[in-house]
Amino acid sequence: MQKRVIIIGGGFAGINLAKCLAGDSQFKVTLVDKNNYNFFPPLLYQVSTGYLDPSSITYPIRNLFRGKKNFHFWMGDLQEVVPQQKKVILDNGELPYDYLIMATGTQTNFFGLEQLKNHAIPMKTLEDALSMRNVLLQRLEAASRIKDRSERLPWLTMVIGGGGPTGVEISGMFAELRNNTIRKEFPELQDAGARIYLVNGGNELLSPMSKKSQEYALKSLQEMGVEVMLNTRIIDYDGEKVSLKNGKYIRSKNLIWATGVTGIIFKGIPSEAYARGNRLKVNEINKVEGVDSIFSIGDSCIQYTDPAFPEGHPQLAQVAIQQGKNLAKNFKKIEKGEHPKAFRYNDKGSMAIIGSIKAVADIPKPKLHLSGFIAWFIWLFIHLFSLINYRNRIRTFYNWSIEYFTKNQDLRLIIRPSKSVARQEIHETKSEKEHSRI
Amino acid sequence: MQKRVIIIGGGFAGINLAKCLAGDSQFKVTLVDKNNYNFFPPLLYQVSTGYLDPSSITYPIRNLFRGKKNFHFWMGDLQEVVPQQKKVILDNGELPYDYLIMATGTQTNFFGLEQLKNHAIPMKTLEDALSMRNVLLQRLEAASRIKDRSERLPWLTMVIGGGGPTGVEISGMFAELRNNTIRKEFPELQDAGARIYLVNGGNELLSPMSKKSQEYALKSLQEMGVEVMLNTRIIDYDGEKVSLKNGKYIRSKNLIWATGVTGIIFKGIPSEAYARGNRLKVNEINKVEGVDSIFSIGDSCIQYTDPAFPEGHPQLAQVAIQQGKNLAKNFKKIEKGEHPKAFRYNDKGSMAIIGSIKAVADIPKPKLHLSGFIAWFIWLFIHLFSLINYRNRIRTFYNWSIEYFTKNQDLRLIIRPSKSVARQEIHETKSEKEHSRI
Repeated sequence: MQKRVIIIGGGFAGINLAKCLAGDSQFKVTLVDKNNYNFFPPLLYQVSTGYLDPSSITYPIRNLFRGKKNFHFWMGDLQEVVPQQKKVILDNGELPYDYLIMATGTQTNFFGLEQLKNHAIPMKTLEDALSMRNVLLQRLEAASRIKDRSERLPWLTMVIGGGGPTGVEISGMFAELRNNTIRKEFPELQDAGARIYLVNGGNELLSPMSKKSQEYALKSLQEMGVEVMLNTRIIDYDGEKVSLKNGKYIRSKNLIWATGVTGIIFKGIPSEAYARGNRLKVNEINKVEGVDSIFSIGDSCIQYTDPAFPEGHPQLAQVAIQQGKNLAKNFKKIEKGEHPKAFRYNDKGSMAIIGSIKAVADIPKPKLHLSGFIAWFIWLFIHLFSLINYRNRIRTFYNWSIEYFTKNQDLRLIIRPSKSVARQEIHETKSEKEHSRI
Repeated sequence: MQKRVIIIGGGFAGINLAKCLAGDSQFKVTLVDKNNYNFFPPLLYQVSTGYLDPSSITYPIRNLFRGKKNFHFWMGDLQEVVPQQKKVILDNGELPYDYLIMATGTQTNFFGLEQLKNHAIPMKTLEDALSMRNVLLQRLEAASRIKDRSERLPWLTMVIGGGGPTGVEISGMFAELRNNTIRKEFPELQDAGARIYLVNGGNELLSPMSKKSQEYALKSLQEMGVEVMLNTRIIDYDGEKVSLKNGKYIRSKNLIWATGVTGIIFKGIPSEAYARGNRLKVNEINKVEGVDSIFSIGDSCIQYTDPAFPEGHPQLAQVAIQQGKNLAKNFKKIEKGEHPKAFRYNDKGSMAIIGSIKAVADIPKPKLHLSGFIAWFIWLFIHLFSLINYRNRIRTFYNWSIEYFTKNQDLRLIIRPSKSVARQEIHETKSEKEHSRI
């Protein structure tokens, strides 16, 4: 009898688990995701700034598992877990499981600031990135039609909340855009005085990285003209004014929210299973504490059992990938009656890019801090080879080469959902629900 | 004093006119378009079927005119023309003109069938194409979750209304998708009996082409498994049933509407200026009849003064391009006090593609009908070199090569507008209006 493995989430963790189990007929693997594609979050900021096409960093899930007879894809949204009956309830059906794996990742954390949530631009999903590209380009177009300088300024002022890798990367990109594309293609906006603010709550940028990398990032961004505000908290945003905790404010129509993430609470999973940041507490083999047959891997879980990481692992791609692979091995061991192997994270280092030819990299073994062009070069190749398939790599390499040599980012299309799409989709959802069945 | 030239519409006609005037300081050229990009309609069907990325067939307008000091871009939507005051009213400002050029193209013609309009999928804009890709992929995913064969069938049945080039091209693409991608990646849909109907009102496909080409297209599509219904009219569609004039109907959730186009009526232009299909009647130099200083070029106009085309020119890219260039020359002649030159269309032939390795081409001088692989090969190169710039060409050539050798179309991402986009846009539109000024 095949074990029914239901994986919720097709990110790094879920895809790697599914890949290791697909083709092994002991398991019947069903991967559930809201989207029909897998995407590569580290390059999302390049989509949002128009340097890469969505298709360069995405791949259709079904294509990845072509020809694997024990693999199934189900496009759907998890509504509830019913551990007593070992089933999940999706928005369009129900699925029974022997093993359930929550690889559900995280979502943007707005820290309960409702008004801010309504006006800020998040940077977590591919939809977010495309939306950001559209909104910012529309703001530039709108600004180009405003003659009054002070009235125009808030349209052009960019505020980035959060000095982690995403915030640093986006700020650097904006600085480049201002110096290249905007200068060349928006003659109306010459000397408009557009400013870029990077607002960070803590005392340093890229907080989990080394002191050296942090200082290099700060200095580089400042040299590029980004105004970095450390020890500064954003407490509200009404779409016009970014309010800071120190009582000051910045007039801006563009707040990019890259301040942090939080896990997702699902109905049916006992609340005791959640730790800080809504992460699911898991044991050394990633089983969720307090429930049977439910596992969690990647950003959605926290594991206190790795001696090198007593506070839990950082929420990084490498942790997710390694946990996915380890869990697959463990399922196979369990089927053979062998003892599963506790997860240990093999730290491969971390890096962040600053603008188009600088980066910082911390490598643990041998202990190394790299910065500048050489770090950028390494960053480039690591990210290129981490892309999911050959075709994405060529496409991305091509885009990057052109961009590097021409300083010309040409993916600046404002593609807005037409009314008919919205209509189709409402219709779709309704009809789909009517036809739901297992 | 510079002549203020306002061009409404950045399609083939408008862009070619603007290109010929940009750089000539006698003119101050403002190009107005709803979108910030120019796109290549002949390859739209490849975007809608997931064979090409939107960025392969589009290009940002501002980038095309980089460095041209007398060129301005205004992203906006024409609301009204005020010929008495020589100005246009846009949704976000007003612009005065010395010459106004309506290069406004056409829109999908639903022949007043309101219910059909609400449910059918049009194929005219880039948004339409992306929407079609999203909707059809969602239908496939939905179908993959339905176990009952007869209940599932309408989700998989494709009906294409209209046997012109778009209808023929889309039908051929669907036949290929069914035989390749769907067979390989949707194991749930094996032998589901998905059918493709091409419904055409007239007695032949590709009606303006030669008899030979028409017959070849029909035979090829039939061989690929497309059910071609000639002399058949669609009279209604409720999202579930395509009703035909002969009293029969087809159960399908997917009706692609490629039946025809119509011009757009603008407020302020006298109704006498419009001819059949809402096309603006123009004289031999493309000036709209009955109004001063207003011109029309491309699909939006009709010209009865070309001896070789007494009924008006066909609505083709080549006509639009040639009219745009001719009008630019005439503006320059008029400025020099010379006599403008009447427009004469130089027919370069027409072609249509059927599936991925067959096409038909009619070439007038020397009179030639080509079909099959050789016509496809010519089609490929003509379209590749018609793409607006080098970068689009490389990108498209790359995509096509991969597709040709792997039969693997991988641009199957369902990217849906997120709620936050919609919110941003409402906000945007409101704020933009508040700030409108000239």
